[in-house]
Amino acid sequence: MDLLTKTIESIKPLDKEAIAQASKRQDELTKPSGSLGRLEKLSIQIAGIQRKAKPQMTHKAMVTMAADHGVVDEKVGNWPREITAQMVDNFLRGGAGINVLARLAGARIVFVDMGVASDLKPNKQLIVKKVDYGTKNICLGPAMTGEQAVKAIEAGIEIVNGEAKSGLDIIGTGDMGIGNTTASSAVFAALSGKSVEETTGRGTGLSDEQLEHKIDVVKRALAVNKPNPHKPLEVLAKVGGFEIGGLAGVIMGAAAQHVPVVIDGFISGAAALIATSFAPQLKDYIIAAHVSAEAGHAAMLHYLGLKPLLNLEMRLGEGTGAALGIIVAEAAVRTLNEMATFAEAGVSEGD
Amino acid sequence: MDLLTKTIESIKPLDKEAIAQASKRQDELTKPSGSLGRLEKLSIQIAGIQRKAKPQMTHKAMVTMAADHGVVDEKVGNWPREITAQMVDNFLRGGAGINVLARLAGARIVFVDMGVASDLKPNKQLIVKKVDYGTKNICLGPAMTGEQAVKAIEAGIEIVNGEAKSGLDIIGTGDMGIGNTTASSAVFAALSGKSVEETTGRGTGLSDEQLEHKIDVVKRALAVNKPNPHKPLEVLAKVGGFEIGGLAGVIMGAAAQHVPVVIDGFISGAAALIATSFAPQLKDYIIAAHVSAEAGHAAMLHYLGLKPLLNLEMRLGEGTGAALGIIVAEAAVRTLNEMATFAEAGVSEGD
Repeated sequence: MDLLTKTIESIKPLDKEAIAQASKRQDELTKPSGSLGRLEKLSIQIAGIQRKAKPQMTHKAMVTMAADHGVVDEKVGNWPREITAQMVDNFLRGGAGINVLARLAGARIVFVDMGVASDLKPNKQLIVKKVDYGTKNICLGPAMTGEQAVKAIEAGIEIVNGEAKSGLDIIGTGDMGIGNTTASSAVFAALSGKSVEETTGRGTGLSDEQLEHKIDVVKRALAVNKPNPHKPLEVLAKVGGFEIGGLAGVIMGAAAQHVPVVIDGFISGAAALIATSFAPQLKDYIIAAHVSAEAGHAAMLHYLGLKPLLNLEMRLGEGTGAALGIIVAEAAVRTLNEMATFAEAGVSEGD
Repeated sequence: MDLLTKTIESIKPLDKEAIAQASKRQDELTKPSGSLGRLEKLSIQIAGIQRKAKPQMTHKAMVTMAADHGVVDEKVGNWPREITAQMVDNFLRGGAGINVLARLAGARIVFVDMGVASDLKPNKQLIVKKVDYGTKNICLGPAMTGEQAVKAIEAGIEIVNGEAKSGLDIIGTGDMGIGNTTASSAVFAALSGKSVEETTGRGTGLSDEQLEHKIDVVKRALAVNKPNPHKPLEVLAKVGGFEIGGLAGVIMGAAAQHVPVVIDGFISGAAALIATSFAPQLKDYIIAAHVSAEAGHAAMLHYLGLKPLLNLEMRLGEGTGAALGIIVAEAAVRTLNEMATFAEAGVSEGD
């Protein structure tokens, strides 16, 4: 609990001086003021986060966390539990969507076993922070103990702290876990008080009937566990997941390290809900990469007060949206840093 | 006129076989089918354009065309005519937004003087296709002669044909020309029959009063010239611009060469309107990079039947949106080509 408490305490507001300097520079660059739209705002936000008038974008990393979910016993999706481990194997061989898009973004990827139901083959690209062999079925009781919830979050913080040592200018979050949209829906409903119908979507592609069943499952999980909406640790323990907790730790750790954190879709959003419940001030450190096709994600981002950069109707997870978001962030920072000013270019300014 | 006619004649429908093969592969990749959303559709479209089941994305180019506009005499904007030449100079020194974003996209840039009002210093990065020293004031008569309009379009076709010789897998369009949103509004109103109020926006940032004046200018231009909406060459000649014609040629030439063409904002959109009026079948070759903040651009894309990939509230022009669109296109193609199939990865498929 010490690491979690210390991390929350060290999250500061963004740096006003860096924000002022970056804003001033944006107005001096050879373009009509404001004409780069959200790229300008994003570059200024990143300046404030990194506390640098000219932010850096050299060391980029993705963290993709995998875990299993006991609620899969309730048949909430079309894919068997074994897919989680098989997809981690696919990640480690470089064949998944996140491998391709992180390569395009020039970001290294840190894969983390937060609680896959089987033992994975050791691999130097895989960090093992296994809290347990999958969560318990949330329809029957809590997903995990309070100690496990702290352990999951602190594992995420440790990952970021480790990455920061090798240089870290931006970090993206991603997930893999069969059943994790169900847990995320439950977390969102529990923390926001929204109806389960509003927070629950079709995951990897459910029929109307299957969606109705999934909504019933989330309702039962909330009825059985009665999580207190004002206690994020309790919500995580009762209806969350190990990768959701881990990603909440990554988000908190990034904010504490002055590193912008680009969140992916619905599962990363649930993690952001947990993280901002612990430390509302960290919201300014979060960049919402995209709004996914998962029903409930748009409402989740709205609840978080975040405006997504992209809408490409993606719903794959793994961090694929976040990898694209890192590219947009780099575009923002590079235009701020590399464009000439009117004075440098000898271009006349408009009225 | 020969080159134009020949180019239009050689634009074929997309290749059905490549589309079928790319679609099949998308369904075999290690992800829930459809979960990469618009990236999947885009990769399939590009396969059909390039006539390759696995499209290539090695040779990327931006074409940014500059020209001046006589209508600047009517004081339609806040920036003096001289800015056009000064910004071309900034392009050639690498300090503009398009330089930064094309670098990020890994795209070479071809700068073209289509009709800047002054003689530019020779530079090996600049292709001179100057049709004239700026267009005439469209409030007083036609912008250019019919011969000049053909010359502008054919210059664009020649540029693409030249680029294709050094390898060209995708091309983006961009513009620079003080006054060119006014000409583009006139082209859009003339070809679509929409009201000038609907087709005219604030360009680089006009006040309410200035916008009213600009609308009046466009109305006068249309009243004086009475362009026939069914004759795109006449519309271009009477109320268009040299870079608008050149970009229309780039779009037509790209389609004829089976090269996907990523269009930028409002000016490239006006060029696409001209190009698709000549050859409606080329629409499938166009990728709309983004919807810009310029009022009228969303309506223009809707009229063209194109759905933008991005909305970052940008309105800079130069091809800055198209450069980001090229990155999204590369993400689409790379996921199609580089992701493992279920069989390759040994991952079980969902129901």
